Amino acid sequence: MRIINIALLGFGTVGQGVYELLEKNRDLLKTRLGLEFRIKKILVRDKHKKRELKVPRELFTTNFEEILKDEDISIICELMGGIEPARSYILSALETGKQVVTANKAVLAERGAEIFETAKRKRAYLGFEASVGGGIPVIKTLREALVGNQIQRIMGIVNGTTNYILTKMLEQGLSFEKALEEAKIKGFAEPDPSLDLKGIDSAHKIALLGSLSFGVFIPFEKVYVEGIEEITLMDLQFAKSFGYIIKLLAEARKIKHQIEIRVFPVLLPENHILTSIRLNYNAILIKGDFVGDILLYGLGAGKAPTASAVVSDIVEASEYLISQNSPLIRYPLKEDKELSIKPIEKGIFKYYFRFSALDQPGVLSKISGILGKYGISISSVVQMGRQKKKGAVPIVILTHESEEKKVSLALEEIDRLEVVKAKTQSLRILE
Amino acid sequence: MRIINIALLGFGTVGQGVYELLEKNRDLLKTRLGLEFRIKKILVRDKHKKRELKVPRELFTTNFEEILKDEDISIICELMGGIEPARSYILSALETGKQVVTANKAVLAERGAEIFETAKRKRAYLGFEASVGGGIPVIKTLREALVGNQIQRIMGIVNGTTNYILTKMLEQGLSFEKALEEAKIKGFAEPDPSLDLKGIDSAHKIALLGSLSFGVFIPFEKVYVEGIEEITLMDLQFAKSFGYIIKLLAEARKIKHQIEIRVFPVLLPENHILTSIRLNYNAILIKGDFVGDILLYGLGAGKAPTASAVVSDIVEASEYLISQNSPLIRYPLKEDKELSIKPIEKGIFKYYFRFSALDQPGVLSKISGILGKYGISISSVVQMGRQKKKGAVPIVILTHESEEKKVSLALEEIDRLEVVKAKTQSLRILE
Repeated sequence: MRIINIALLGFGTVGQGVYELLEKNRDLLKTRLGLEFRIKKILVRDKHKKRELKVPRELFTTNFEEILKDEDISIICELMGGIEPARSYILSALETGKQVVTANKAVLAERGAEIFETAKRKRAYLGFEASVGGGIPVIKTLREALVGNQIQRIMGIVNGTTNYILTKMLEQGLSFEKALEEAKIKGFAEPDPSLDLKGIDSAHKIALLGSLSFGVFIPFEKVYVEGIEEITLMDLQFAKSFGYIIKLLAEARKIKHQIEIRVFPVLLPENHILTSIRLNYNAILIKGDFVGDILLYGLGAGKAPTASAVVSDIVEASEYLISQNSPLIRYPLKEDKELSIKPIEKGIFKYYFRFSALDQPGVLSKISGILGKYGISISSVVQMGRQKKKGAVPIVILTHESEEKKVSLALEEIDRLEVVKAKTQSLRILE
Repeated sequence: MRIINIALLGFGTVGQGVYELLEKNRDLLKTRLGLEFRIKKILVRDKHKKRELKVPRELFTTNFEEILKDEDISIICELMGGIEPARSYILSALETGKQVVTANKAVLAERGAEIFETAKRKRAYLGFEASVGGGIPVIKTLREALVGNQIQRIMGIVNGTTNYILTKMLEQGLSFEKALEEAKIKGFAEPDPSLDLKGIDSAHKIALLGSLSFGVFIPFEKVYVEGIEEITLMDLQFAKSFGYIIKLLAEARKIKHQIEIRVFPVLLPENHILTSIRLNYNAILIKGDFVGDILLYGLGAGKAPTASAVVSDIVEASEYLISQNSPLIRYPLKEDKELSIKPIEKGIFKYYFRFSALDQPGVLSKISGILGKYGISISSVVQMGRQKKKGAVPIVILTHESEEKKVSLALEEIDRLEVVKAKTQSLRILE
């Protein structure tokens, strides 16, 4: 039976998951594929660190060159994360003629242009299914299943941490802080969760998904990003009372030659399929010109699901190895000088505003007067009853479609009113 | 640019969809793959039939041999449906060394053993993504994305016609007949919809999905099948009042060495993700030992989504052609003499019973007495108020987990009671 030798770079959660999968399902893979996968080297920082998983000591190395020079090793899995040294290792591996599998969305979103270019030039396999959506086969679906489709739109919930927090807040009436604390305890939020909470993780993923969808490399910096740190329980509850659920949405659309790409919290109508995605689950909704709408749903992170995706790429890399044929170029992601990204300021949305205003006569009239001045038309208003203690009360206004630019100007003016006591919460509504 | 010549067998809805896709997205496919796809021959019954689609007359042939002998043609797409002559054509094509793509679940579910065997022996590509779930990439996900997983369970809504009918009945209070009529008008039910309504279409699909999931050929006849023809609006409404939605579920599970495989209408709790699948949409939920639960959702039939799946297979077949390498055998579907399918009689389920009983004192006691005698324990009862006109009234009982066999015996005895005026409706509940 043919043996495929693999090296793992990094032996954290994902690396250990891959090791466990290849051990546990060794016979299954032999039966299915007629191949035996062997992990020959594992790059770690400390060979002597105590590890829970029983792994033969001789597999560990601290020297990347040793892996690179080992001609038996044909597939290198980069499972370290971060930009450097991941980027250099991936590039060296490709240059040396190795097949590469990575779970690293950050390096692809931020340095993808040179990595994809190198893979293409060296006609090497570059698998990155695990970089987006954990075990959900979104990359495979985009590149293979939907290969015959013009992709018109891709949108989804691609960050489990924030989705867990928003779900817990709404369903159990928790504050943002409490929900975050719970997510940390459950292992759904990292000790420093800011990349997740600020939407950066989602932005990395949508940059990659958008690039694949539209066949052009979209640099990460071009993604408009808002996180969920400003979302309060009150917002979730007000939205719900209007029939909406707030989700952190990552989205890329192509309208004629212009691309819209962004991550932001939005109000989705309760009957939208993405509102049924709860807790740490992820889901991605893709619209193709022939296939229509396709939804993929599952665990978007975690040891076992991510290992499942890495192994699927290892198998694919093996097929290319065996056929000694370079893969069809399914991701001609050139840098596009003419790439046109529509700035968020040019967007047109419906809005949810929550004003914090003094409970005085004439306040609503002032606020709505300013909205009217900027041509922002109101569809619903809720003003809370008088509070016992003196202070600001929330006024919630939903609008018809309005220009983002005018909304910014209007809110700036409103927030300067003396009766307005805090920055207005403004969220977009997607129907 | 390399040209890939294709023949289509059949030029109905799907065939025309494939033709349209390859025309409309020709440039896209060139850019993505560096390949040009050309339909060289189309097998039809009548060359001179008037067709809406403008197709050069010379592409049509009525002679399959002409296609088989054409050495330019390397990929044959069987899009006729039915068992014969589809089966013979597929086998001849494989024997001749052509790559085959088919959208025909019936021929694979009923004659798959010899077809898979032939493909394997000839080391030919056999694509059948379009045979289950239309444009939803369930075959690719099972065979490729989840290749590292033991599949523990696959379940879903794989028939759009019945799902459309059940949705319309529940949401608009339509009778079965009215909903079916509407489905026909909308083109979601065929003129003779019995294969769909009786669950046969779903059974074909789950036979195939179960076979792929468990790596053993499960003959179609082994699938336990119930359709939806006996489901009444009353059942949907009663179920809803208990917090359940009735769906036609196709399901295959493996527990140790025994397989459970069946199609039946079941009551699913309202918060189950499959209850959010409405109208003619399909969804498949797969549980793997590493990936956890994955859901795939989309349009399960129709011209364009099915064409999308066929083209994805055509592209894959082309990759094998180009690499001149036979595909890894990802579906070692041997016939298994020891295949153990658990008979439905040995099942244990919770049940929903709707009795049609005379509105007399003591009736509930008689019914519950018989249930008790067979060890069937009741969890809820609803007895309708006295009707104005004399006659049977519905009594609905939900049970705790009970043995299917004892349930059959109990219902037989109950249906013989003089106070019971019609066959009892019995449906299983899945939590």
